[in-house]
Amino acid sequence: MKSYFSSDFKLGVLGGGQLGRMLLSETQKLDIYTVILDASAEAPCAQICNEFHQGDLLDFETVYNFGKKVDLLTIEIENVNIDALDKLESEGLEIYPKPKDLRIIQSKASQKLFYTDNQIPTADFSRYTSLEELKHSVSNEAITLPFVWKSARFGYDGNGVKIVRSLEDLEQLPNVECISEKLIPFKNELAVIVARNKDGETKTYPVVEMEFHPEANQVEYVICPARIEDAIADKARNVALKVADSFDFIGLLAVEMFQTEDDQILVNEVAPRTHNSGHYSIEASYTSQFEQHLRSILNLPLGNTDSKLAGIMVNLVGAEGHTGDVVYEHIEDILKIDGVTPHIYGKKMTKPFRKMGHVTIVHKDVAKAREIAQQVKETIKVISK
Amino acid sequence: MKSYFSSDFKLGVLGGGQLGRMLLSETQKLDIYTVILDASAEAPCAQICNEFHQGDLLDFETVYNFGKKVDLLTIEIENVNIDALDKLESEGLEIYPKPKDLRIIQSKASQKLFYTDNQIPTADFSRYTSLEELKHSVSNEAITLPFVWKSARFGYDGNGVKIVRSLEDLEQLPNVECISEKLIPFKNELAVIVARNKDGETKTYPVVEMEFHPEANQVEYVICPARIEDAIADKARNVALKVADSFDFIGLLAVEMFQTEDDQILVNEVAPRTHNSGHYSIEASYTSQFEQHLRSILNLPLGNTDSKLAGIMVNLVGAEGHTGDVVYEHIEDILKIDGVTPHIYGKKMTKPFRKMGHVTIVHKDVAKAREIAQQVKETIKVISK
Repeated sequence: MKSYFSSDFKLGVLGGGQLGRMLLSETQKLDIYTVILDASAEAPCAQICNEFHQGDLLDFETVYNFGKKVDLLTIEIENVNIDALDKLESEGLEIYPKPKDLRIIQSKASQKLFYTDNQIPTADFSRYTSLEELKHSVSNEAITLPFVWKSARFGYDGNGVKIVRSLEDLEQLPNVECISEKLIPFKNELAVIVARNKDGETKTYPVVEMEFHPEANQVEYVICPARIEDAIADKARNVALKVADSFDFIGLLAVEMFQTEDDQILVNEVAPRTHNSGHYSIEASYTSQFEQHLRSILNLPLGNTDSKLAGIMVNLVGAEGHTGDVVYEHIEDILKIDGVTPHIYGKKMTKPFRKMGHVTIVHKDVAKAREIAQQVKETIKVISK
Repeated sequence: MKSYFSSDFKLGVLGGGQLGRMLLSETQKLDIYTVILDASAEAPCAQICNEFHQGDLLDFETVYNFGKKVDLLTIEIENVNIDALDKLESEGLEIYPKPKDLRIIQSKASQKLFYTDNQIPTADFSRYTSLEELKHSVSNEAITLPFVWKSARFGYDGNGVKIVRSLEDLEQLPNVECISEKLIPFKNELAVIVARNKDGETKTYPVVEMEFHPEANQVEYVICPARIEDAIADKARNVALKVADSFDFIGLLAVEMFQTEDDQILVNEVAPRTHNSGHYSIEASYTSQFEQHLRSILNLPLGNTDSKLAGIMVNLVGAEGHTGDVVYEHIEDILKIDGVTPHIYGKKMTKPFRKMGHVTIVHKDVAKAREIAQQVKETIKVISK
C-alpha cells in the first residue's frame, strides 16, 4: 500500500476556502502533506497548509501546472478548469472526484439530464441556452408560471436560483444559459452525503433536514437526524446511493432532495464534495465528513457514518448593515452552553450574508438540540467593529 | 471583551511538539492567530502555525524576545526559561499557566514540597542535591531499599524515574538533584485533568485509568472512564481539584495519582498543560482538552467535560529495531474498525519507543472499546522503511 502518512506523498486541493480549511484539520491529524491552490492570498487555507499556491482555478495553465506538482488531486469547490483536469488525468494523475463527474455536475442542465438518463427522480425541467429562449417558451405557453429558474452554472447557496411568478420576475433574470423547473410543493428539504472509494465501498450518512426560516426562505438549521419517518429516510438514502452509483462516484457526494407533499423523494441537486449539510459531523459523527473525504479519495476503508449524538448546525453569516473587520459579538455567551462549538472560518472581513463560520450543537435529544440551536442563533451576531 | 477570533490578537506558545500541533487544530477552528517557538525547524507545529520561530526554550533572551511579540503566552512543555517568563510577566504580559506555578512544577522536589505544604496526599519522600547525598542516606539507613528514585528535573514519560532495589541499581543512577520516594504498592494509576480560568471557574474531566503492560511496566492504554468505584473516582477528582485550587491554577492541570491497595489516593505528579492522558477527549468528550486549554487561558467559559462515549487511547511508539523514515504498517487495517481514529504527529523519523502518534477508540461500552484497543495495538506497527 502507498504510504500517505508522514511520507513524500503530496495531496493537491483546488480551492482554499472553509471546506479546505476543515479538510486541513484532518490532513494534519494524519500528517498528509497538503498543497492548496486558491485565487486569494487571504484564503482561509493560505497560512496553515503545507504549501500554498495563488492562482485562478478556472485558468487552464494554472490548474494544469498545479496538478503537475502533486501526487493526487482533489477539489473543495467544483468550479475549476475541467479541461486541465482531463489532460492531467490522461497523463496519469489520479483525480477524485473524477473530472467527467465534475463536468456533469458543474452545469445544472447536464446534472438534470443525467438524472433523467439514469431514472433518478427529479422535478420536470427544460433547458435554455439564453434568457431569450426562455422568454420565448413562456410566451408560447410551452411553460407556465410560476416555475423555478436556475442558472446553469456558478450557482451556490441559493444564488442563481429564483422563483419566477410573473413576467416582471422574468425581466429581472440575467441572460445566461439556464433551466426552468416545475415548482414542486415540498414538506421537507433533505440531504444525504454518500462516500464512495475506488474499491466501490460505499457508505451513506444519516438523512439531514434543512429547516427554513418561515419568512426569509433561508436555511436556518441543518438537523441530524432529520425529523422524518424511517421509511422516508430509507427512501432518501436509497435515492442518494443510486445517484452515487450512477456516477460510479469516487469521493463525497452531497445529494440534496425534496420530500414532496405526497412523500416522493426528488433530487434537487448534488455537490461533488464536502458540504455545509455535513458540518454537524465534525462533532456528532464517528467519522467527520472531512476525514471521510480523505478516506474515500485515498481508497482507504471508509469510516463509520453513524452519529454519537444528535447534531444541529447553524450558519454564521454576516449581519445586514455590517461591512468591515469582523467581530463575533456574544460568542462568550454561546460558549457557556454545553455541547456548543463555534467554527470560525478565518475571514477577516464581514459583509451582509457572507458565510463567516458555523456553530454545531450536539445533544442526546434532537428536540433539546433544536431549542439550544435557536438560542445560539438569537445570541451570536457577526458584525463589524 | 477582548476579541480573539479573526482579530489582531496573537497567542504565543512555547513548544511546537505534538501537544502544540493538536492545540493548533483548535486555534484554527476558532481562527486564533498562533505563534510558536521551538528549537527544531522540523517540529510538528512548524509548517502549520501562523508564525513559527526557531529557538531554545531554555534560553533567557530567546524566550524573552519571543514573549515580546505576542499578546498572551502559554506553553505546551514545562521545561522553559522561567526567569524570562517572570520578567515578561512583570512587564505586563499575561502568561498562563503562571510562571510561579511552572517554577514549582518544573522540579519534582519543589512539587513534592508543595503537596506536603498544602496537605495534599502524596508518598513520603526525601530530597537530595546529588547522588552522593542519596548514597550517604542509604548507607546511613536513613532510607531503606527498595525505593523510587526520581530526577528532580527534566523527567518525562517515565524517563528520570527508577525503582532502586539494590546497591547495584544505585550505581546506575546519574549524579543529579533527585528525590527518593517510598515505594507504594498500588492497584491503579489514575489521572484527572482540571481546567481553571482566571475567573476561577473550574471543571474536572472524568477520572482515567492508565492500564500497564503486565510485564513491561509501560502504560499501554488510557481508559476513560476508569473502571473503578464511583466513591474512588469522586475522591480522585476532589484530590485533583484541591491541587489546582492550591496553586490557584490557570490553564489545564493534569494530576496523576495512585490508588493504593487500601484505596487511598496519593498524588504522583502533575503536568501544567494538556496531557497524554487527555488525548481520548478529542473524540470522546464534548470539549477536547485542547479546546479547554484555550478556553481556560483566554478566560472564556469552560466547556462541558462529560464524555459522549467511552474512550481509550493507545500510544503509537516506534518499534524496537527500527530507526529511520517512518511507515505506519497496517494502518489501513485499523481504519476498517468502527470508532478508531489514528493521530499521526508528523515526525518523519522513527526510533525505538519514540512517541509517533496515538490511536483513539470510542465505543458506547468501555469493555468493548478495551477489546478493540487491544486489537489496534496488536495490528498497527510503527516501523522504518
